[in-house]
Amino acid sequence: MAASIKAGIVGGAGYAGGELLRLLLLHPNVELAFVQSRSQAGKPVYAAHPDLLGETELAFCADAAIPVDVLFLCAGHGEAAKFLAENEVPTETKIIDLSQDFRWHEGTSGDTVDASGRSFVYGLPELQREQIQQAQYIANPGCFATGIQLALLPLAKQSLLTSDVHVSGITGSTGAGQSLSATSHFSWRTENVSTYKVMEHQHLREIKRSLLYLQPEGQSDIHFIPYRGPFARGIFITAYLQSGLSLEEAQALYKSYYGGHPFTIISDQNPDLKQVVNTNKCVLYLQKHGSMLVITSLIDNLLKGAAGQAVQNMNLVFGLEETTGLKLKATAF
Amino acid sequence: MAASIKAGIVGGAGYAGGELLRLLLLHPNVELAFVQSRSQAGKPVYAAHPDLLGETELAFCADAAIPVDVLFLCAGHGEAAKFLAENEVPTETKIIDLSQDFRWHEGTSGDTVDASGRSFVYGLPELQREQIQQAQYIANPGCFATGIQLALLPLAKQSLLTSDVHVSGITGSTGAGQSLSATSHFSWRTENVSTYKVMEHQHLREIKRSLLYLQPEGQSDIHFIPYRGPFARGIFITAYLQSGLSLEEAQALYKSYYGGHPFTIISDQNPDLKQVVNTNKCVLYLQKHGSMLVITSLIDNLLKGAAGQAVQNMNLVFGLEETTGLKLKATAF
Amino acid sequence: MAASIKAGIVGGAGYAGGELLRLLLLHPNVELAFVQSRSQAGKPVYAAHPDLLGETELAFCADAAIPVDVLFLCAGHGEAAKFLAENEVPTETKIIDLSQDFRWHEGTSGDTVDASGRSFVYGLPELQREQIQQAQYIANPGCFATGIQLALLPLAKQSLLTSDVHVSGITGSTGAGQSLSATSHFSWRTENVSTYKVMEHQHLREIKRSLLYLQPEGQSDIHFIPYRGPFARGIFITAYLQSGLSLEEAQALYKSYYGGHPFTIISDQNPDLKQVVNTNKCVLYLQKHGSMLVITSLIDNLLKGAAGQAVQNMNLVFGLEETTGLKLKATAF
Amino acid sequence: MAASIKAGIVGGAGYAGGELLRLLLLHPNVELAFVQSRSQAGKPVYAAHPDLLGETELAFCADAAIPVDVLFLCAGHGEAAKFLAENEVPTETKIIDLSQDFRWHEGTSGDTVDASGRSFVYGLPELQREQIQQAQYIANPGCFATGIQLALLPLAKQSLLTSDVHVSGITGSTGAGQSLSATSHFSWRTENVSTYKVMEHQHLREIKRSLLYLQPEGQSDIHFIPYRGPFARGIFITAYLQSGLSLEEAQALYKSYYGGHPFTIISDQNPDLKQVVNTNKCVLYLQKHGSMLVITSLIDNLLKGAAGQAVQNMNLVFGLEETTGLKLKATAF
Repeated sequence: MAASIKAGIVGGAGYAGGELLRLLLLHPNVELAFVQSRSQAGKPVYAAHPDLLGETELAFCADAAIPVDVLFLCAGHGEAAKFLAENEVPTETKIIDLSQDFRWHEGTSGDTVDASGRSFVYGLPELQREQIQQAQYIANPGCFATGIQLALLPLAKQSLLTSDVHVSGITGSTGAGQSLSATSHFSWRTENVSTYKVMEHQHLREIKRSLLYLQPEGQSDIHFIPYRGPFARGIFITAYLQSGLSLEEAQALYKSYYGGHPFTIISDQNPDLKQVVNTNKCVLYLQKHGSMLVITSLIDNLLKGAAGQAVQNMNLVFGLEETTGLKLKATAF
Repeated sequence: MAASIKAGIVGGAGYAGGELLRLLLLHPNVELAFVQSRSQAGKPVYAAHPDLLGETELAFCADAAIPVDVLFLCAGHGEAAKFLAENEVPTETKIIDLSQDFRWHEGTSGDTVDASGRSFVYGLPELQREQIQQAQYIANPGCFATGIQLALLPLAKQSLLTSDVHVSGITGSTGAGQSLSATSHFSWRTENVSTYKVMEHQHLREIKRSLLYLQPEGQSDIHFIPYRGPFARGIFITAYLQSGLSLEEAQALYKSYYGGHPFTIISDQNPDLKQVVNTNKCVLYLQKHGSMLVITSLIDNLLKGAAGQAVQNMNLVFGLEETTGLKLKATAF
Repeated sequence: MAASIKAGIVGGAGYAGGELLRLLLLHPNVELAFVQSRSQAGKPVYAAHPDLLGETELAFCADAAIPVDVLFLCAGHGEAAKFLAENEVPTETKIIDLSQDFRWHEGTSGDTVDASGRSFVYGLPELQREQIQQAQYIANPGCFATGIQLALLPLAKQSLLTSDVHVSGITGSTGAGQSLSATSHFSWRTENVSTYKVMEHQHLREIKRSLLYLQPEGQSDIHFIPYRGPFARGIFITAYLQSGLSLEEAQALYKSYYGGHPFTIISDQNPDLKQVVNTNKCVLYLQKHGSMLVITSLIDNLLKGAAGQAVQNMNLVFGLEETTGLKLKATAF
Repeated sequence: MAASIKAGIVGGAGYAGGELLRLLLLHPNVELAFVQSRSQAGKPVYAAHPDLLGETELAFCADAAIPVDVLFLCAGHGEAAKFLAENEVPTETKIIDLSQDFRWHEGTSGDTVDASGRSFVYGLPELQREQIQQAQYIANPGCFATGIQLALLPLAKQSLLTSDVHVSGITGSTGAGQSLSATSHFSWRTENVSTYKVMEHQHLREIKRSLLYLQPEGQSDIHFIPYRGPFARGIFITAYLQSGLSLEEAQALYKSYYGGHPFTIISDQNPDLKQVVNTNKCVLYLQKHGSMLVITSLIDNLLKGAAGQAVQNMNLVFGLEETTGLKLKATAF
């Protein structure tokens, strides 16, 4: 077995932090050095994540002083940049940030560089695995951003995004985190549906940057209707656009593009969301209706859309097999 | 109080039949003469609809021989035409059919005429209330068809459907009826999402016919992604298209169009599905993003999308106040 | 039509207040004079209860100065007593309080008298309808208290509660109100179960007082396991005890006891919770297993367990038919 | 790594078979030789279990002729006995049956012996791990039976079950398998609760046999109210009885009893069901209220209540570490 990677988590009391904990505790190459949380400092991690009772005796610590090989930032949007501005991190420590603070985005020409000169590589392995393998600092993509990009990357690679793309997507409640709000109240959300950030979801910025990276010219617009659905985990995305490809050509293109990527799978059957829940997989499904190519894309927002992809990136950065610690039993029901 | 309308239901054991029963039992102008069901004949109606225990001692009968003023057909697609072919219905009896058998549809020039020469008026009051008031035979619209049309009618009326319309919609499980299937199994459907009949939903045929009726020329295509959601009641629809209208102009147009229609309401706030659950209402909400006009449309598929609209049509046909028996307490949670 | 009853609601922005609004807006004998809410003062009621959009133009007011015939207090536990201490209420105004502040309870010999000398009658019509009809001030029972009492009253009336009673009950999320908490978060509650206040639920105090009222001697203990369930509305209760009654005798006893009570119904079939959701009904079901008599009791916690029962009490206090405004279409699904 | 165990599954298209597949595909010491299913023969396993797309290319076979080291029977109640009567199984093949066909039960003096003379050991490791380690044939316990026994074993071991035990338990929909029925229909089950087999659940027979094994004399009765809940996975059980133990004594007793058992954990906090969902764990929680000792017991019905426990038994039978292949990431949400 490879020597152990010492890992630390900043902001371990939230949803993404909890998922990361669950993954790292079972990862064969990782030794969890600390889990920091300001709100839970001093308490055992199972106080915040009761399913971890019996799995670990680790307690949350108040600050992140312990030297580690890799630091995961689950501190939330804005908080990651703040943490790095206020804390000294040794130059040899790798950093994987799950917030949007350092993701590339539309209107920039490349990776985001922070105040200390660290250059963050956008961590979508299916887009740029080689760059991730060489990276020291990773900006982990957003959940909707991951699902939508995986639906479109093969087309962009061939410069085939030449007409408007129409996207609708439904997200579970964990996508909004554990903060309490009217739309996270069970009485409201159960058996309910609503939209939010219609046409203006913030993930469009990183999506457009990635697509531009693959297809620098001739792109059309992306229109996106995000829905809140009455379930906890997962994102279900449907995208469509005019395409000259036949169904067979499209399937061949997608299978070829994702051939070497172990987590992204092309289904020949109409899929349902629970196929990917509690896994790091993305399932894609293609249909052709008239001139419209329709792409379905499913991920678990907390895994492939957050903590699972962070571990996938860690595996790549440290030269491990990409799937290490990520072969997960699906919940299925 | 007005003289009582004698009503009969054919196919009363299913979801739509049950909802109709619930409504008619509470309707001040209706006397329920019989409820027919082949599968439940002889059993009390609460055997199939246990919430009606204590509400009525009525039992299902095997055939529909009793003379009535109005006959509701809830027999299912194909079964309604079959029933009318095999049974004599007195000419003075009004018929309201909830199946798709007699709905008008794309490719025809008007109302559907059955084998006996009955001409069925398409029963969407917000489209053609006057025709319904004069009608003897009504074809009640489909649920998705109702929601999507109510989102688009004001634009068609002004011949403003001039670019492609992109629609996504999520339906609850009652939309698929009470038949048992893999996708109606609780273990499968809870916390799950899937699509079905992508771009090919059968309701598009009646929708297109209605829009053509209002706007005979220059229409563009409708693209429709229907989703199955993990909830029982309701349909949540989002439609968008390029539009030269400002938000204020669009709101004024919709408020004007629906001004005299008591069940269709324009919201100034972003709505959620449970606002309409267990009511006969349609809530519409308008947004403008760049050149896109986005219309949200919510209905309860079993009420405004089926049994409630059937009662609304009955009220119109018999000259009653349109809202009689349809002022319902929303479930809200 | 009878002359209108002018009604006011104090604390109208919460769940019980909202349900009361929905009921009173449709009640044929009620004119809603005001709805007070400190947090929502000045806003239209549909800002807090969006399903009421299009139903009323009423706005929340900041204080409850308008003279009314009946005042409903939905202010919450402790807040009702505080409101009455701080506000002058004309002596001719009837008061119906939905909090626990004035409910009778174990250890007292009768009705609760407040600081101003008002004597509150415990408002369970199936227990003491005559006293309610004569009352000026009503303390509306708790939700679990209503369901459990309705399961046991006929036995207590015959002094047949002679062995320990074992009760389990599952409540939906609306039972805990709209305040945000870890256990009301959708991500936590969906697909989840937990217990709370095991053996110590506060409603046991009023239950025991009522049972003692009917059966002053020889009672045994009540053991109660309350569960939180992953649904929004309703309470499902199972109670059992040793009983010498045969099933037929027990059924006869219950049918006789509830014969004149329109909302409490004895089912001959194994019932499910949704039979009562969005209605003011209580469905009871009896089984005998060996020497154990098992009683199932179902109510909608917000209606028969709160706002519906409050309207039922109002009807009784004002001499109206008990069911006026309470014949509600069940949601059923 | 230890030499591989060749495993076969009979009846692999159902829920338990699917879970077993998910576990065995990830088990480091198992090579899956075949998965049999009459209904799905010839199809890839992901046709029945779509989450396994990309995980295996295995297809269902029609019969179970291939020689294996261990045969898992997931054929259903009655079908297991039938399979063994109709098929030759080599004597050196271990058999783990998930049906109730060979479980011991009240009224018998020991293990169940089948028609071919095979003696099946009741496979509850926390009851009799040594016997399982020596066994050739295992009868895997029922789901409710597992949860209830784990709540009571430490008391029985000390002959402390001396007063009636009152049990209520709520099960998710997967407990009833994948067959379609009125109570498995999503429209019915969502937001609903009901009871079934009140006081007569068939698992009581095996529970009573186990308790008698530990405490041969002086037992009292078990009263059990099983509920159907609106969720897919898990069982939540509450049991209580009169007990002379203090809370501390009870906690010490349970911690001592389960000290060497890795999957059964005593919580000091009030737990919720999702702590164990998608794990092989049982979480127990103790409370003392007056003279009542209250025990909460939570398991995932498909894992510790079925397929997970079957793998645990396989590990014991083959001399592997008990937790091999069973360290699972909880779903948590």
